[in-house]
Amino acid sequence: MTLGNLGGLTRGTADDRLAAIVERLDGLLGGDPDLSFQIAAYHDGALVLDAVGGPHLKADSIIVPFSVTKNTIGLTIGLLIERGLLDLDAPVAEYWPEFAAKGKQAVTVRQLLSHQAGLPQATPALTWAEVFDDHAAAKRLAQSRPFWHPGSAFGYHGITIGNLASELVFRVTGLTLHEYYERELRAPLDAEFYLGLPHQHEHRLVPVLPMIRPVADGATIYSSILGPVVWTMAGPEVDFANDPVSWRFGHPAGSGTGTARGLARLLAATVTGVDGAAPVLSADTVEVIGQQQVRGYDEVLGQPGRAHSIVFQKPTAAMAFGGPRAFGHDGAAGAFACVDPDTGLAFAYTIARGPWPGGADPRAIALAADLGTLLSS
Amino acid sequence: MTLGNLGGLTRGTADDRLAAIVERLDGLLGGDPDLSFQIAAYHDGALVLDAVGGPHLKADSIIVPFSVTKNTIGLTIGLLIERGLLDLDAPVAEYWPEFAAKGKQAVTVRQLLSHQAGLPQATPALTWAEVFDDHAAAKRLAQSRPFWHPGSAFGYHGITIGNLASELVFRVTGLTLHEYYERELRAPLDAEFYLGLPHQHEHRLVPVLPMIRPVADGATIYSSILGPVVWTMAGPEVDFANDPVSWRFGHPAGSGTGTARGLARLLAATVTGVDGAAPVLSADTVEVIGQQQVRGYDEVLGQPGRAHSIVFQKPTAAMAFGGPRAFGHDGAAGAFACVDPDTGLAFAYTIARGPWPGGADPRAIALAADLGTLLSS
Amino acid sequence: MTLGNLGGLTRGTADDRLAAIVERLDGLLGGDPDLSFQIAAYHDGALVLDAVGGPHLKADSIIVPFSVTKNTIGLTIGLLIERGLLDLDAPVAEYWPEFAAKGKQAVTVRQLLSHQAGLPQATPALTWAEVFDDHAAAKRLAQSRPFWHPGSAFGYHGITIGNLASELVFRVTGLTLHEYYERELRAPLDAEFYLGLPHQHEHRLVPVLPMIRPVADGATIYSSILGPVVWTMAGPEVDFANDPVSWRFGHPAGSGTGTARGLARLLAATVTGVDGAAPVLSADTVEVIGQQQVRGYDEVLGQPGRAHSIVFQKPTAAMAFGGPRAFGHDGAAGAFACVDPDTGLAFAYTIARGPWPGGADPRAIALAADLGTLLSS
Repeated sequence: MTLGNLGGLTRGTADDRLAAIVERLDGLLGGDPDLSFQIAAYHDGALVLDAVGGPHLKADSIIVPFSVTKNTIGLTIGLLIERGLLDLDAPVAEYWPEFAAKGKQAVTVRQLLSHQAGLPQATPALTWAEVFDDHAAAKRLAQSRPFWHPGSAFGYHGITIGNLASELVFRVTGLTLHEYYERELRAPLDAEFYLGLPHQHEHRLVPVLPMIRPVADGATIYSSILGPVVWTMAGPEVDFANDPVSWRFGHPAGSGTGTARGLARLLAATVTGVDGAAPVLSADTVEVIGQQQVRGYDEVLGQPGRAHSIVFQKPTAAMAFGGPRAFGHDGAAGAFACVDPDTGLAFAYTIARGPWPGGADPRAIALAADLGTLLSS
Repeated sequence: MTLGNLGGLTRGTADDRLAAIVERLDGLLGGDPDLSFQIAAYHDGALVLDAVGGPHLKADSIIVPFSVTKNTIGLTIGLLIERGLLDLDAPVAEYWPEFAAKGKQAVTVRQLLSHQAGLPQATPALTWAEVFDDHAAAKRLAQSRPFWHPGSAFGYHGITIGNLASELVFRVTGLTLHEYYERELRAPLDAEFYLGLPHQHEHRLVPVLPMIRPVADGATIYSSILGPVVWTMAGPEVDFANDPVSWRFGHPAGSGTGTARGLARLLAATVTGVDGAAPVLSADTVEVIGQQQVRGYDEVLGQPGRAHSIVFQKPTAAMAFGGPRAFGHDGAAGAFACVDPDTGLAFAYTIARGPWPGGADPRAIALAADLGTLLSS
Repeated sequence: MTLGNLGGLTRGTADDRLAAIVERLDGLLGGDPDLSFQIAAYHDGALVLDAVGGPHLKADSIIVPFSVTKNTIGLTIGLLIERGLLDLDAPVAEYWPEFAAKGKQAVTVRQLLSHQAGLPQATPALTWAEVFDDHAAAKRLAQSRPFWHPGSAFGYHGITIGNLASELVFRVTGLTLHEYYERELRAPLDAEFYLGLPHQHEHRLVPVLPMIRPVADGATIYSSILGPVVWTMAGPEVDFANDPVSWRFGHPAGSGTGTARGLARLLAATVTGVDGAAPVLSADTVEVIGQQQVRGYDEVLGQPGRAHSIVFQKPTAAMAFGGPRAFGHDGAAGAFACVDPDTGLAFAYTIARGPWPGGADPRAIALAADLGTLLSS
C-alpha cells in the first residue's frame, strides 16, 4: 500500500487501490465546477486517502461541518465508558441531581444520549447566548419538562444534545466536554478537529456557503409539530456556522472546526488505532457506543426510519454508509464522517456548499460505503 | 377586545380581531346549505367567539359530540393529579386490585390512560348494557387479557377508556367519573357539557345526523385485525349518539352532551382560567396531562402517526391543531375541541352532520390552528 | 359433518361444508399445472380437510416447510409455561447464566422469544456446523453483543431463534427442544411433524423445489443493513431445506419435516384438542403464547408492519389469516400453518415450489381466513 500524488482535478494522495475512487472524485469535480470538498480515509489505522478538490477549499482549509461535530460527543462519552466513569443505565440525576426535575428522575444516560429524553428545546425557548454557554442552557433544560414521556419516543436534539452531554461530562469529570475532549482525545491524538477554534488557526477558516434552493421549491414546511419550536431560539438569531461566537465556542452539537483529515484521524485513532498505536477505545466499548438504541420516527425531524446509537447515527437503508456495527454523523450542509469497526474504515468528508436540501451529501455516503467494501475485500 | 354581533350567515358574537374568521365561517355556510355547526373560543380566559350557523343547530342546541367527550376524562384525571390523589406511574392494581388479573399486574395508570393497556374490548366481548353501567364493563375488562403485551403498543380504546377511567376514579375517590366530574368541574365552572343529560335540558337535544357516504365507496374495510372485534359489542346494537340510554348515561368516552360554548369554557376554565379566576389546573399539571405518551401505529384504527397524551389527542402533521403542548380530542362525526396553553386558546366545534369519513372536521382543525396563531400574535 | 372423497383435481377428503373450498382448490390446480400442495384443517378438534394436489406431492409426502417449523418452538414454550417451568418475565440469565454477557443481563425470556434480543446472528458470524449443533451456536450467541439495545427494536431471528430457544429448553428441562418436543408433544399427539426426520421416513421426503424468479427482477437487494450479515453464515454454504444434514438435525427454526396433516394436527391437539381429548394447553396459556408482543419495523427483514407473539407470527392487514387471538408461522417458500382459538380452526399448507418472492403463499392465507369464517359461522 502506497500513497501516490493525484494527477487529476482531485489534489492530494491516495492508496494505489483507490484509483477508481479517485477517478470518480475527478468526475464529480469535472461535472460541477462549484463543488468543493475535502475527503479523507484511514483503513486499519493507515491513511489511504487525503484529498481535496474544487475552488472553495484547500488541503488545510478549516470549516464548520455542522453536526458532524457530534462525533466528538460520542467518542468522548465512549472514553468515559472505557474508563469506567459513566454508566449508560444509571439515571442522569445520579450524576446531575438537578436534572431530576419535572418528571425526569428516571431518565437514563442511555436515553439522554440517544435523543429519547424529550429535551430538544427548553421551556421557555433557549437564547443563543444560553446555547453558547458552558452551563446556562443545560441548567434551563434540567428545569424543563420533556416534550414527550422520556423513553416513549425519540427526536433529534440537534442543538441541545451538545449542552446536555457537556454538562454530563462536567458533572462526571469536572471539565466541560470541550476541555475533556481537547485534553484526552484531540491533543494526544493530534487530530485537527477542534471544539473552539484556536486563534492561531482562524486564518485557515473558510465560510460555509449557503445551499441553493431550487426555484420550484415552496416555502419551508416543517413536517413535525415540534420542528418550528425546536429550531427557533428566543431573541436575536445567530449564524450557527459562520458567526465567530459559534466557532470560537465550538458547540459540540454543531460548530466544531477542522479538516476532513482531522475528523478521519480522530475516528480512526479512537476505533482502529493509528500509526501502529492501539485504539483509544476497546473493541467492547466500540460495540457499546455503536449499538443501535433507537429506530423509527423522529419527533423533531418528522421523518421515519431514523436510527441512533449512543449519540451517533446508524446506517439505514436510506443512508447506507456501512455495516451494522458502523456509526458516524452527518451535518446539516453535506459533510459526513463515520467509522466501521468491521471494515476498518474511518472516513470523513467536508464540503463548502452542501447540496439541497441538506443532510449528508449522498455522494459522500456512497463513497464511504464503497471504500468500506473495497478496502475490506 | 369587544364582542360584536355577527351580521352574516354565522350568528352570534365575535371579537373584533376575528373578522376574517367570521367571513370564513360565512363562506363555509354559504357553500354548503346543510352544514350546521356551533363554534366557540376563549383566549386567555375571555370568550372571543360564540357562534352558530346552519339549519340544524341553534345557539343553545345540545348535541352528542362523540369522543370529544373524552376531554372530560383527561381533565378529571388532571384534577386527581393536581390534588395528589393519583400517581401516573403507579400500577393500576394499586388502586384497583382486581385489575392485576391476566398479566396486568404491572400495567401503570399512565399506560392505561394512554391506550397502551391492550383492553379496547373485553374477552368475551362486552354488551352495550355492560358499557352503560357504572361498573359492569370495568369488571369484565379487569378479568380480560390484553390483546397485546401492555406497553408494547397502543390502540384507541374508543369505548372502554371511559369505563376503565371511570372505575379508576371510583377507586380513588369513591365517586364515578360522572359524579366527580359533575361535582368538581362541571357545576362549579358552570360549563354546559354534561356526562348524563339532565332531564330539564332534554328538549334542547338535537340528533346527530348520519354522515353521507360517497356512492363510489366500497364496503367498510377495517384496516386492522382488531377493528371488527373492538367495535362489535355482543347482543343488541345501540345508537351510541342518539339512543336515550346512551346520552342519559353520558358515557365519558363518547356520549356526553352539551354545546360548543360549554366545551370551550370547560377547557378554558381548567387550563387558562375564565372570568378572571385562576385555572383549575396548575401549569405543571397541564404539562403533565398534555405530555405526549405514545406516537405511531394505532392497533385498533390501523393508522400510523397517531399520538396521545394522557387520554387526549396530540397535534400531528395530519391534524395540526396547535403547538407541541396543545391537546384535545375529536369525535367520530366531525366535532372537535382543544386547548393550547402556549397560545391561550380554548376551542370547540360541534356539528350536526359530520363530513365523511368521520373524525375531526378538517375545517375545525384549520380554524383552531388559525385562531391560535391569530390570537397569540 | 362427514368427510367425503374428493372427485376433482384435489385428492383427499373434505367436510360437506367445504364444497366451495374444494372447488377453489381444483381451480388453483387447473390454472397452474406445476402447483403442488398439501392442505389440512381441523375444526374444534375434528379433521375437516385433508387433501393434496399437483404433480410433486402425495398425501403422505414429507417436506421441509422452512419456518413453519417455528410453530414447534412456540408450542413447546407454551408447554413449559403451562407446566410452570418457564417465566416469560424472568431474565434469560436466570435459566442460562452465561447469557448475561455483553449487556444482556436484563434481557427477558419474553424479549428473547419475540425477536427483541438483538441476536439474529452471532459476532463473529456462525458457521452452519454451529447452527446444526445442539449447543455450539447458542454458546456463541450468548457471548455476543446484541445488534440493537434489547427491547428497543425487534428483528426476525430467522435461524438463531431455534438455537436460542433450544438452549433455553435445555437449561429448563435438561432436554434439547428436539427431545422435549418429541417426547412431550409429537409422539403422544401422534402428529407427523418431526424435528429430525426418522430414518424409516426418509423415503417419503420430497425436495423443496426452487422458486422461479421473474426475469425482469433485478439482483437481490437487502432492504436492511442487517440482512446480508444475518443471512450469511461463515464458511461453506448449506441448502437449509434439502441438505440431509439439515433435515436430519431438524432445526426448530426451519428444517422440521412432515405433512400438512401432521402440522394441522399438532396445532389442533395443543390448542383445541383432537379426538375428543382436552387440548394440551389451557385457554389461558393459549392466550399467553398468542398475545402480540411486538409490532412494526423488522430490523432484519427491513419491512414495516410485522407482528409477533411468543415466537409465532400474528395476523396483520397484509397477512390476515385470522382474528386477533390467532397465531401461526409461514415459511420462506410458501408453506403456512396457523390456529385461531376463537374460530377453532387449525390449518396447514405445504407446497413443493413456493411462489416468488417467498413467504406465505397468499392463496394459503386467504384459504385459512375463509375456512375460519366459514366453519365458525
